[in-house]
Amino acid sequence: MSFRIGFGIDFHQLVAGRDLWIGGVKLPHVKGALGHSDADVLLHAICDALLGAACLGDIGVHFPDTSADFKDIDSKILLQKTYRLIAEAGYKIENIDSTVCLEQPKIKQYIPEMQKVISTILSLNENAVSIKATTSEKMGFVGREEGVAAYATTLLISINN
Amino acid sequence: MSFRIGFGIDFHQLVAGRDLWIGGVKLPHVKGALGHSDADVLLHAICDALLGAACLGDIGVHFPDTSADFKDIDSKILLQKTYRLIAEAGYKIENIDSTVCLEQPKIKQYIPEMQKVISTILSLNENAVSIKATTSEKMGFVGREEGVAAYATTLLISINN
Amino acid sequence: MSFRIGFGIDFHQLVAGRDLWIGGVKLPHVKGALGHSDADVLLHAICDALLGAACLGDIGVHFPDTSADFKDIDSKILLQKTYRLIAEAGYKIENIDSTVCLEQPKIKQYIPEMQKVISTILSLNENAVSIKATTSEKMGFVGREEGVAAYATTLLISINN
Ligand SMILES: [Zn+2]
Ligand SMILES: [Zn+2]
Ligand SMILES: [Zn+2]
Repeated sequence: MSFRIGFGIDFHQLVAGRDLWIGGVKLPHVKGALGHSDADVLLHAICDALLGAACLGDIGVHFPDTSADFKDIDSKILLQKTYRLIAEAGYKIENIDSTVCLEQPKIKQYIPEMQKVISTILSLNENAVSIKATTSEKMGFVGREEGVAAYATTLLISINN
Repeated sequence: MSFRIGFGIDFHQLVAGRDLWIGGVKLPHVKGALGHSDADVLLHAICDALLGAACLGDIGVHFPDTSADFKDIDSKILLQKTYRLIAEAGYKIENIDSTVCLEQPKIKQYIPEMQKVISTILSLNENAVSIKATTSEKMGFVGREEGVAAYATTLLISINN
Repeated sequence: MSFRIGFGIDFHQLVAGRDLWIGGVKLPHVKGALGHSDADVLLHAICDALLGAACLGDIGVHFPDTSADFKDIDSKILLQKTYRLIAEAGYKIENIDSTVCLEQPKIKQYIPEMQKVISTILSLNENAVSIKATTSEKMGFVGREEGVAAYATTLLISINN
């Protein structure tokens, strides 16, 4: 049995005329996240943490933003595909801890729903999927509400060795 | 026995007329950190890493900045409360590694004192509490000395399962 | 046997008239990274993650940018020295996961070479050294191509206890 850790980070611009998907949940807001897919910053950070821990490349390698296959795609599908990749490589997820860094809207009330969505896709107990919220205290592009950032860390166990 | 990892990040503005508390130590400086509590960026990042690893929510859930209870509070008390929460949930801390990202002042000479403060609160050996210092090379809000950032990661062991 | 985790972050300005070293590989680009050493942002983040996990201070403590010894030094030498420090302290590296956050140039095609360089220095299997690439979506100093950031996380095993 061996352990692997991973860390993923993702950013998206916030613009008018787009939906705001975070953690697989659509949040009511005047702006949404810009991107080739549905631009779900939290699911992308989690995908990258999982892929990184398993040393399987990154989200851009597996789901290129130049491919029509992933245009406006629901990132829950990307998380599902990521889950299959790490499972096929012989890894089991011990836990995920993540943080969404965003000024507005407040995501706190949506976190239980996000945890349910993510833990279901990853076949995990909900208490193995932590989602935290913070702001950058009005500083930088997140502070000016021009963008959103997400950070995710994960611990995997290798079943094979 | 099972393991859990967590990652916390925190930011505070640096402004005149406030004290600069970092890692439970008051640093001499022309500016201090703005916040509802004493705005100790390092202790907050560590609290969030610990809470995240244990899937117990975040620092804003437990110590809301809208509550008079936490106005100007010493963040060492928040770290003590966080420690109790994770201990009650059956977790033991394996180690903490953290980074303070700050242009001025240099914190290097204060790190041993910070390690002592934090390890005492968390009942840890001092060599289980790593504190690193970096700058953002004059870039961004940290580089312009408008703010300070801290990052913390932790590994917990569950005693119960 | 016990485990330790670490997290390192590094930033460098991108300026004309400097080479762009990332992950021990020199990339063709109109700008390079500014710093006292060769300013290899990825190797520095990995050094800091390793030192932090072993609670051995940070890269600035071991390789101060005020020392002529490290002027323009190849950061592969710093990684080699870091490896010796953690090996002497009784640690073995389980894995490393890292992310380079950079708008231009795209590093994807150079990642296998970077993995080879780093895994050789650290006596690791290449699949224990993950390197991911991302952008900050045109936002902030990385988005404006003024700088580059790197993040690294690592899991160590203590051989002694
Ligand atoms: Zn994304
Ligand atoms: Zn704070
Ligand atoms: Zn550096």
